[in-house]
Formats: sequence, C-alpha cells, structure tokens
Amino acid sequence: MKFGGTSVANVERIRNVARHVKREVDAGREVAVVVSAMSGKTNELVAWCKEAAPLYDQREYDAVVASGEQVTAGLLAIALQEIGVPARSWLGWQAPIYTSDTHGSARIESIEGAGIIEGFKRGEVAVVAGFQGVHKDSGRITTLGRGGSDTSAVAIAAAIHADRCDIYTDVDGVYTTDPRVVPKARRMDRVAFEEMLEMASLGAKVLQVRSVEVAMVHGVRTYVRSSFDDPANPGEGTLICNEEDIVEAQVVTGIAFSRDEAQITLRNVADKPGVAAAVFMPLSEAGINVDMIVQVVSEKGTTDMTFTVGSADYERAFAILDKIKAEIGFASMAGEKDVAKISAIGIGMRSHAGVAARAFRALAEKGVNIRAITTSEIKFSVLIDEAYTELAVRTLHSLYGLDAA
Amino acid sequence: MKFGGTSVANVERIRNVARHVKREVDAGREVAVVVSAMSGKTNELVAWCKEAAPLYDQREYDAVVASGEQVTAGLLAIALQEIGVPARSWLGWQAPIYTSDTHGSARIESIEGAGIIEGFKRGEVAVVAGFQGVHKDSGRITTLGRGGSDTSAVAIAAAIHADRCDIYTDVDGVYTTDPRVVPKARRMDRVAFEEMLEMASLGAKVLQVRSVEVAMVHGVRTYVRSSFDDPANPGEGTLICNEEDIVEAQVVTGIAFSRDEAQITLRNVADKPGVAAAVFMPLSEAGINVDMIVQVVSEKGTTDMTFTVGSADYERAFAILDKIKAEIGFASMAGEKDVAKISAIGIGMRSHAGVAARAFRALAEKGVNIRAITTSEIKFSVLIDEAYTELAVRTLHSLYGLDAA
Repeated sequence: MKFGGTSVANVERIRNVARHVKREVDAGREVAVVVSAMSGKTNELVAWCKEAAPLYDQREYDAVVASGEQVTAGLLAIALQEIGVPARSWLGWQAPIYTSDTHGSARIESIEGAGIIEGFKRGEVAVVAGFQGVHKDSGRITTLGRGGSDTSAVAIAAAIHADRCDIYTDVDGVYTTDPRVVPKARRMDRVAFEEMLEMASLGAKVLQVRSVEVAMVHGVRTYVRSSFDDPANPGEGTLICNEEDIVEAQVVTGIAFSRDEAQITLRNVADKPGVAAAVFMPLSEAGINVDMIVQVVSEKGTTDMTFTVGSADYERAFAILDKIKAEIGFASMAGEKDVAKISAIGIGMRSHAGVAARAFRALAEKGVNIRAITTSEIKFSVLIDEAYTELAVRTLHSLYGLDAA
Repeated sequence: MKFGGTSVANVERIRNVARHVKREVDAGREVAVVVSAMSGKTNELVAWCKEAAPLYDQREYDAVVASGEQVTAGLLAIALQEIGVPARSWLGWQAPIYTSDTHGSARIESIEGAGIIEGFKRGEVAVVAGFQGVHKDSGRITTLGRGGSDTSAVAIAAAIHADRCDIYTDVDGVYTTDPRVVPKARRMDRVAFEEMLEMASLGAKVLQVRSVEVAMVHGVRTYVRSSFDDPANPGEGTLICNEEDIVEAQVVTGIAFSRDEAQITLRNVADKPGVAAAVFMPLSEAGINVDMIVQVVSEKGTTDMTFTVGSADYERAFAILDKIKAEIGFASMAGEKDVAKISAIGIGMRSHAGVAARAFRALAEKGVNIRAITTSEIKFSVLIDEAYTELAVRTLHSLYGLDAA
C-alpha cells in the first residue's frame, strides 16, 4: 500500500491511513505500507536548502529532505499500534533500499526484503519511508527525486514478492482521459503495463513513469485507488497488469494530452548525412528531450525539420540552435509555444490497421489542423494548436467508443 | 562546537553559526559541530506523536523526533560549503554513536570517531546531529532525551580527543548565580567539573547534568559561551576544567537555587530499623527522587521525618505514602509546596571549616527560617520558605564575596 503526501497531510489523515491498513490486515494480508512526506513538508525542506545555498550539495539536500518521509513513517507506525495493529517503521537505510549515488535523483539498485518479511512473521506491518534509500558504499542517504515514492512502493512490492501494489491517490483510478476535460471519461477497470507506460509518458499524471517501468519489468500488479474512500468500505480502482489478464482488449484504451509542448521548425536545412545528429546532439547534451521529429524534403536538396521540446526547454533549445546555425547550415528558424500533443493509446493497435487514419479524418472534419504526427506500435500522437485541445480530446474519446454511457 | 535550538532557529541563524565555525577553521582548527533541532521543531514532532497515540512506541517516537537534528545538520553542512568551508553531515547512525536501547532517554555507550577524523584529514568539518544515536543490535534510531545535545557534544569531543568542547548558549557563560535574581552576579572564568556538576544538579540550567558527568569522567574541557556574539569577534565564556587548572580556588564559587521543591514531613514514625527503607523504597520504585532527608527523634521512641521531593512529584508521593501509612506506622503527614532550596557550591569547602555555619548565621540575621539542611563535601543546601528565595540568594552571594565590584 502506498499513500502520498495529501493522504498523510496531518495526523488525523495518518490515522485514516491506519484504518485502511487495518482493513487489509484484518482480511488476513501481510502488509508493507510506503508513505510520502506530509504534503508541504518536502517543499519547506527544499526551500531551506535553497536558502542555505543556491547551489547546495545534493548529498546534504538528501539528508535534509529524507527527514520528511521519516516523520510520516514513524507517525503511521504509532497510529497503527494505537488501533491494535503491530507495526514498525523502516527508513531507506534500515530496509535497506540500496540506490545509485546520483543524489537527488537516485535509482533503486536492490532492496533487501528479508527484514520486512521477518517482521511479517511476527505479525508486523512494515511502514517504509518512501522516496529514499542509501548508497551502499558511502552509507549516505539518497532520494529518488520527486514522485519517487511510487517507485519505492513498486520496487518494495517486487522485493517482497507482493501479490499486488496498491497506490492510494486523490483519484479513484486511471481514466480514459482527464475527466476535467471530458466529463464522459470512464475509469478503466484494467489497463496493460505498456499502455500505462505510454499514458504516464504522454501526460497522464496519476503515476510516475519510472514506477510503471519498474512494475512492468518485475510484473508487479499495481492497483490505483482512492485514499479518500471510506476505509471500511472502499470503492474500486484500476488494476495495471499484464496484457493477458485483460479479457476484452480495446483498440484504443485512453486519450492522453499534454500542453507542455513547444514546436521548433528549421527551414532549408542542408539535406546531407549527419545533419540530424548535428541538430539533436547538442540538445541532448544540454539535457533537452526532443520528441515528434518530422522531416519534409523541400526544394534544391534542402529539408524542413520540425520537432517538439518541452515548453520549459523552449528558450534554451532556441538559443543553442541559434549558436550552431552556421555550422548546421539552415536558412531560418521558427517556433510555436501554443501547441498541444494529443495521443491515443491502445495495445489493440498492434492488430488493427487504420486506427490513426480514422483520427486524422475525424479531426479534419472538426477543422483541427494537424501540425505533426508520430506513431508507435501502441499509440499515435498528433501535434495541434493548443486552442483545439479540448475539442480534439473529446473528438477522439467519442470516436474510439470511450464515452461513458 | 555545539549549538542549541535557538542558535539554529532558522536558516539565517544557521548561516551565522557557519560563520562561527569558519572562524575556528580559519584559525587552523579541526572542527566537529554538534547541532540541535531548530527551536520549536522538537516540540512539534513530539506533539504529532502524542496526537497519533497518547501512549506511543518510544522507538517510533525516536525515529520521528531524530529527524529534527537531521535537518539542521544537513542545512549547516550546506551553509558551511556556501562560505567555502568543506563540511559533511553525520547522523547518529552514520557516525555511529552507539547507545543503549532505552529509547527516548538512551545513554551513549560508544562512539566511533574514525570516520569523523578521516574527514578532518580531507579538511572537512563534521556536522553531527546531536541528541541521537543508534542501537547496535537492533539498528534502530535512539534519542538521548531532552537536552541530550550537550551530552552528544561532550561525548563526541571525548571520542575524537578534542582539545576543547565549546557549548554555545544564549548566555555568555556560567554565573555565580542567576543574574536575574542577583544583578551583581559575575560570570566565572573557570569552574571545576565537580562544582559545575553540583550547580547543574542543583538548578543551574546552563548545562545538562549528564553532559557535565561525561565531561568530568573523560576530562573534556568544556567552554560555555554565547552564540549571540559577533562571529568575527567573540567574547569570553566560562571554562569547565580540572581543579588543578583553577589558580585561585574560592571557598564558595556559586549559589544555586531551585523553587521546584516540596517538603513532606511524617510525624511520629516508629523509630525502628528498616523504617527509612519502608518509607523511601516505594517512592524510589515510583521513580520519585528524594532529597534532603532530616530525621529528628521526638517523644516515646518515635521520630519526625522530613524530606523533599520535586514539586511535580509531590501529589504522587503523598498518595503513595498515604496508601502505606498503616504498614509504616506514622501518626500524620504534612506537606509544603512553597519552599525553595538554596545551595552554595565550592571545592574550597573541602579545606575550610565553618563555611556553612556562617551562612546559617547570616540567614538568621535576615529573618530567614531554615526548614532543613544538607551538606556534602563541596556544597551545602538549606530549605527555606519560597518567599525568601531572592533575599537568601543575595545574602549568601554577598557573604561569600561573589558580588561584582
């Protein structure tokens, strides 16, 4: 079971989390619970680090910030004991959860589940501080970076061979698209790992991408559900599982969208070998992710090159390309920040042709201009003017039969 | 160097602490700094534990509360690096500081100074989280109980063979008595371990009793000084050191007082062997400290027994004694909460007779009634009506020549 910051925002909510845990224990389950810091705490700790030094030592930052989850873990163990559930807290270095030494954004390398499993034998719930680990050689605290508690939970579930990893969030599952945009969006009962990975990558914020990767690699059935449910009588959520466990696979499972995109077009780029590398290597070296690359051959052996970057990286990407303009040899550069990426995801696309073509036609009928298209095995994405986001999402949601009755 | 909660109350003050540390490093010293939690933090964490469960698990309490010093240690390391002083934080389990497993009030058993000393060789300041340790067998975090940061500092100073342990406080040293009561109180330049131990035990709040014990046992010269001094130009403090290092030993060094006393008198107690044990054992078993026992033989083989307890324990002591009244066999019980204990301390008393007698006469002359007296090798205490506290303290302070010129 994993509970995020808003679910443990104060002691009263922590006591509510304890009741959720007790329900599972009473049902005869052995439970490990992963908790985040009380909401707001991590921001406070980060602000203090920045106040102490604008360029702070990441190792010390980790020691400071990891204290947030430490507090929640101890408090939840206390709250559990108070309602008669034996429990103990496990900090990252105690479990231990070994990570790389890339402080501030460490990756889990291995988890010793033995201590936690020993605790189960004594009838003890393991309350694990999320988001943190320890580097084996240095013995120093690491953190996994923002959102890392989901990853902690899935990785611990894998390490202790859990039947399931329940992620309690402020929504009751994964929806076919954002219900704020499409009121007819439906909660899915099941979604395949691959689909969830695409959705998370493409802007669905319910789970961290990295946690879905870990779940997929280790085959951890992950259940997204609401922490605001009555602990005595919880509702249903969405199970993220293997394709084989999904009885009725749909062609398109969900529609994701992202407004955090920006488009850059280079005009009349010399169409010679190595030019793509010349454009994209400097961006990659600056840590800028490039997406949706489209190349159109134009007049006299030159080409127009269009691609997207995250809108936060837009100005930086522009500046980098301007600096190497002469070297690459292009005529001009144009950009657009008010664009959105709409994606349709579904493992059924593998066996169905023409799925994307139907979308292009439907969007054209609504007067939505498509600026770029990319496709992969189980998804396709279109880049459009941002103003058409809601219209496009609703159009595709209806087109693929996702609207609730 | 040790800095308490008010000295690290916010990031600005932590940066000021960093400047104090830099001064010592610039003077060519190898420095370990022990820090408390930011003031108010520990109280907040304790309140959360109590809210989670009135009777909380001390082990979880320790995990929660130890996070306070963890945050300060990381922040100070960052602040030091920011002003060009290499530094790293050491948590209790990292140093490691091994303690007993009496969670919430653990005692330090041993400290591995090797890691910290290795750091010195790399030119690194060690920033140690005070107040905490780890139990060797269980690997769980322990705390030393309130005020334990002073003890951490002295014990670490001993472990790394420090020349001196500087305790930075909100006062600039140890005074002959409380300056709020006696404006003519003087800061002492030096005071012997034994004297300081008596003063701390008798109500002087500048240092924790346990920290003075550790300093005395390991011979750690401890310097009490102000954290509010200009870091570039600090003032003097008080050095707590061996008797031999004090050139001009005074007969009386200081006057301590405590208003947290209560007097209990048992009348007509059967004067038979074992009666004292019958009275005091049940109190001891209930964790009640008994002090200043005076016995006066009265009529018919009975005795009146007067003793003091902490005023917080008064009602409890009364109830316990009432329950065993028949068993012990005494006629009646009387009590008084409005009493104060005034003590004079000085290693010079060992070699001077009649020191206490002068006090009794001087107090009598001022009309101060003495309810009980106890003496030891280097101190004597009188119990008086609380209303006379200031008068008595000032009288003794003048009598023994302690008034500032």
